[in-house]
Amino acid sequence: MLTPVPAPLRRDPAALAPLPPTIAWRGDTDGCLLLLDQTLLPAQRVVLELHDGQQVADAIRRLCVRGAPAIGVAAAYGLVLGVRARHPLRAAFVETVREEAVMLASTRPTAVNLGWALDRCVRAAVREPGLPALLEQARAIHREDEALCRRLGEHGAALVPDGGTVLTHCNTGRLATAGDGTALAALFTAWQQGRRFRVLADETRPLLQGTRLTALELAAAGIPVEVLVDSAAAGLIARGEVQLVLVGADRIAQNGDTANKVGTYGLALACQAHGVPFWVISPASSFDLALPHGASIPLEQRGASEVLAPALAADLPSVGVRNPAFDLTPARLITGIVTEHGLIRPVTAANVKALLSASR
Amino acid sequence: MLTPVPAPLRRDPAALAPLPPTIAWRGDTDGCLLLLDQTLLPAQRVVLELHDGQQVADAIRRLCVRGAPAIGVAAAYGLVLGVRARHPLRAAFVETVREEAVMLASTRPTAVNLGWALDRCVRAAVREPGLPALLEQARAIHREDEALCRRLGEHGAALVPDGGTVLTHCNTGRLATAGDGTALAALFTAWQQGRRFRVLADETRPLLQGTRLTALELAAAGIPVEVLVDSAAAGLIARGEVQLVLVGADRIAQNGDTANKVGTYGLALACQAHGVPFWVISPASSFDLALPHGASIPLEQRGASEVLAPALAADLPSVGVRNPAFDLTPARLITGIVTEHGLIRPVTAANVKALLSASR
Repeated sequence: MLTPVPAPLRRDPAALAPLPPTIAWRGDTDGCLLLLDQTLLPAQRVVLELHDGQQVADAIRRLCVRGAPAIGVAAAYGLVLGVRARHPLRAAFVETVREEAVMLASTRPTAVNLGWALDRCVRAAVREPGLPALLEQARAIHREDEALCRRLGEHGAALVPDGGTVLTHCNTGRLATAGDGTALAALFTAWQQGRRFRVLADETRPLLQGTRLTALELAAAGIPVEVLVDSAAAGLIARGEVQLVLVGADRIAQNGDTANKVGTYGLALACQAHGVPFWVISPASSFDLALPHGASIPLEQRGASEVLAPALAADLPSVGVRNPAFDLTPARLITGIVTEHGLIRPVTAANVKALLSASR
Repeated sequence: MLTPVPAPLRRDPAALAPLPPTIAWRGDTDGCLLLLDQTLLPAQRVVLELHDGQQVADAIRRLCVRGAPAIGVAAAYGLVLGVRARHPLRAAFVETVREEAVMLASTRPTAVNLGWALDRCVRAAVREPGLPALLEQARAIHREDEALCRRLGEHGAALVPDGGTVLTHCNTGRLATAGDGTALAALFTAWQQGRRFRVLADETRPLLQGTRLTALELAAAGIPVEVLVDSAAAGLIARGEVQLVLVGADRIAQNGDTANKVGTYGLALACQAHGVPFWVISPASSFDLALPHGASIPLEQRGASEVLAPALAADLPSVGVRNPAFDLTPARLITGIVTEHGLIRPVTAANVKALLSASR
């Protein structure tokens, strides 16, 4: 039995103008990287103009750019800037690329796309040492991300029920990628195909990416969205108010175990308890085939001030903080994984291998 | 695999002076109710001085006082104030008590202690119409709450593992009752008995009672406490970092189904998945024996502004909010229930009935 909901859906699309691009490169090898500062959204739309690798590393660390695919693209451009600033001789070019790649790779430990994109750039530099080829590789990763988001959207849209409610966690949209997103791309595509549904967006503490970014993106697209505290999801799933859960991934092991934003695992448990489909939508680059299962995926711990605001901490001087940014969802709780190459279902090491080998 | 935790336990007990009483009555029938305004904690310690029933209703609605047992005690005193302000003739006394009780009962729909305490006061007024007897009944409920917290603490302390980590949700301590609390009373008692353990306190969005109130109370008692975002609990439970989960209850049905602060259900699912004991600690007055099971417990929905801060809402004009304040945990996920009369384990309608009948 529910008491009436006192939260009407407000409507004023005027304030939801299109956002600037998440990531853009301006100019040629003498150009710079433009990043929309996501820490300031939705209140302010500030585009950062970055000219060296350290600035890009800092922007990744501070989450000005976040989302595994977007981090990969930003880091690839950051490598161009980092190498350029050091003016390496041709003989030292590849070594400089490697050093800058190591620096950029250290910014976030969990997302595998970061290392994947940087490895691609290093290999490109080995083949053809020089800034033009390095920039072209970054641009290729950028273009490919746009294209694979389209394919993720097409594959994923088929899962979205007409007239149902879809719940999602964190942000997996245009702000998390260089294209339309991963899990949110499925929603954008389904909506464009004429399917109608509602979205429940977990607010996603501590940094509220669900409220600040996902709700913003969905509302701007005209898709009805309501935010909720993360811990309310399980109760709503239990009451039959959710027909599908879609999330992204930061790193997926060989067997399908998936590391994603903290809170994902609890959602998967609730879906299992109530027979609600729980899908991961993520590019093939999110798979870390060096890892047989998820237990060895590093789960980033972030700073206390994200959880305990400094003003509050001052009044709670002897209180500690735990702030794991990710958790691990075992493959057996995942209904299926959508990649740009198609669907993996059921999620087993054999099915992962089959799909990824076929596409290589 | 975990990256290092960057959040050391800070220590400066100086700032954690004892709190004023959660609830106190000053004077006789011409007196007033003193409530510590919990919405301002931990930054400010403001004691409200309330002189009429509407003020008390407003304080309950705004969560200046919260926690099922504390709400019951506050409402009983609020009834004295509400009736006194209307100066009823003796012939109209009982009718006035009933009217004021209905008004106070409407403030929060989920906690059963509220209706239970008001019913006791109405029955007392029927037996002996007059303010002195009504105040004495409120004082009796207050004294009994202190005594039963002691018994809950004693029964619950036996569950607390020496050297382990206990996770709790929302606030169930001195601020939620007129005594030492329900679930937290078990921790205070175990600590006083010399057992040593750590506590993980879910921050408890949207209103952060875990951070603002539970962490404050535990730190003031010298018990090591770390806060975490609610959605991090499942991952920590999965990694074996939690040996026991203790929560309170707002209403318990005949069969043991338990309504408690939103997020409780997800914790129970995670505990079940990993074999971690999940205990509810709550007075017998939390049982609503009119309800055969939990599906008919009303689950309060609260306002949007608790979830979406007004400043954020202004930038998200077409975003809605769901804000259920409670969820329902089925009895089969509850390892046991601690009441002042002893333990109910396993949680079945027969065991609930046996314990509660034996004590009446």
